[in-house]
Amino acid sequence: MKCDTLVIVGVGLLGGSLARAVRQRDVARRLVGIDRAESHRRRAVELGLVDQAVADLADEAAAGADMVVACTPVDCIAAPLIEAARRCRPDALLTDVGSTKAGIVRAVEDALPPDRLFVGGHPLAGSEKCGPEHADGGLFDGRLVILTPTPRTRPEALERATGFWQALGARVRIMTPEEHDRAVALTSHLPHVVASALAAVLPGSLCELAASGFRDTTRLASSDPRLWTAICSHNREFLLEALELFEGKLEEFRRALSRDDAARLFELLEEGKRARGGLASRGP
Amino acid sequence: MKCDTLVIVGVGLLGGSLARAVRQRDVARRLVGIDRAESHRRRAVELGLVDQAVADLADEAAAGADMVVACTPVDCIAAPLIEAARRCRPDALLTDVGSTKAGIVRAVEDALPPDRLFVGGHPLAGSEKCGPEHADGGLFDGRLVILTPTPRTRPEALERATGFWQALGARVRIMTPEEHDRAVALTSHLPHVVASALAAVLPGSLCELAASGFRDTTRLASSDPRLWTAICSHNREFLLEALELFEGKLEEFRRALSRDDAARLFELLEEGKRARGGLASRGP
Repeated sequence: MKCDTLVIVGVGLLGGSLARAVRQRDVARRLVGIDRAESHRRRAVELGLVDQAVADLADEAAAGADMVVACTPVDCIAAPLIEAARRCRPDALLTDVGSTKAGIVRAVEDALPPDRLFVGGHPLAGSEKCGPEHADGGLFDGRLVILTPTPRTRPEALERATGFWQALGARVRIMTPEEHDRAVALTSHLPHVVASALAAVLPGSLCELAASGFRDTTRLASSDPRLWTAICSHNREFLLEALELFEGKLEEFRRALSRDDAARLFELLEEGKRARGGLASRGP
Repeated sequence: MKCDTLVIVGVGLLGGSLARAVRQRDVARRLVGIDRAESHRRRAVELGLVDQAVADLADEAAAGADMVVACTPVDCIAAPLIEAARRCRPDALLTDVGSTKAGIVRAVEDALPPDRLFVGGHPLAGSEKCGPEHADGGLFDGRLVILTPTPRTRPEALERATGFWQALGARVRIMTPEEHDRAVALTSHLPHVVASALAAVLPGSLCELAASGFRDTTRLASSDPRLWTAICSHNREFLLEALELFEGKLEEFRRALSRDDAARLFELLEEGKRARGGLASRGP
């Protein structure tokens, strides 16, 4: 699996990390970054992440692409992929790394002729940091990438996307867009909301007392609010379901505490420990 | 500040780490560990954490103590301190490392003659790990230790306890037992409950999809349920207040999501990020 010209739309943390990983594993001959932010374009070239960085897919630098990966915020993924389909070679593979899938996949499939090669993707890797200067070529190594084909996906698209991610050291798992969105509402979007709510209830006067436990539990609250507003909005229905589940569990804790029911409290804490113990130490 | 004979009651993770720190900084001439668990006593001696380990404060090994630190679970702190007061020298300093203070301090003060030297303490340091084999001599280095004197505390007790912790590299802050308990309900006990509830709502089938964000947010769920049942029960009133505050914030998220109010969602996420940003990178 080797691309000729890989176009990465959005060279922030994820796009930059993808570019670096592609370079390190020699998965593309030529890398073009597309970013509206002049600072991202400049840094991406300075850091050697891409061969060339331009502001727009209309630029001829993108015209020869045989693969386009959208690494923009979830509310800015469908549009550039649809535009890319008009600008690039007809056999170019179009995919993305967005944290939500159903809305994006629907929008792109509705707009694209059926012969185009598109499949949605989501590498389960990230960071609360932003910008190409934090690009990490090892970000996808050993991680899980979800690809979300539909009945309209051409087998060649799924095959090439799978090969691409495997060439970067990732493992690939197939889910429907809806299965994916329901799952990540629990594994990713809910923890973000929980971390943010927890951070927000700490009065500034108690910051000095917040030890490593509070810090770890709220780390995700440092993520970019702009990106996460879009993700939460995109996935609001499944996220509301996940919130309800979580609030129900919290309510069980509240009831046990109210009744001073130590036996029940112990059961609940043990259930949490058992569930946490089911996670491998490193992650997907 | 140097002790002659320091007795540590409970040589698990915290007691063992305290012993190691005392050794490394040469803060006591002789270290005696008291633990009902034979395995803890054996490991504590094998690892060189203490000079001698016995099962009971009644043992003559403890009789000459000029300082006793209870490092047992919060529901087993008052009793050994009260017994220590009967066994040790009358000028021995009695203190503890318990995560809750009001109940412990009240019980000990009610039982002790007014001339005894006692002050409650809580180093803001710990780990989800258990047992003397995870003892870490650097656990208290640069950390904050809360001491909780009351009008009944003799100034000498506060002074010696302060000197002891400072000799181990910790910083000392004074609070009333109630101020302490209200604060740690938010900074420590609430995050434990939240982490546990979040871990518990993840179906086993989705473990494979839980990335570093989920892992960090739920790390505290791995803590010992027995210890944390006691802590939560001890501090249930302040913990219920903290839970209510958190549930209120979560409800704001739920409302913004239900209404698809992206502007409000952004405000909430930004509030969380700002609050999280107020925490220094390392902690107390």
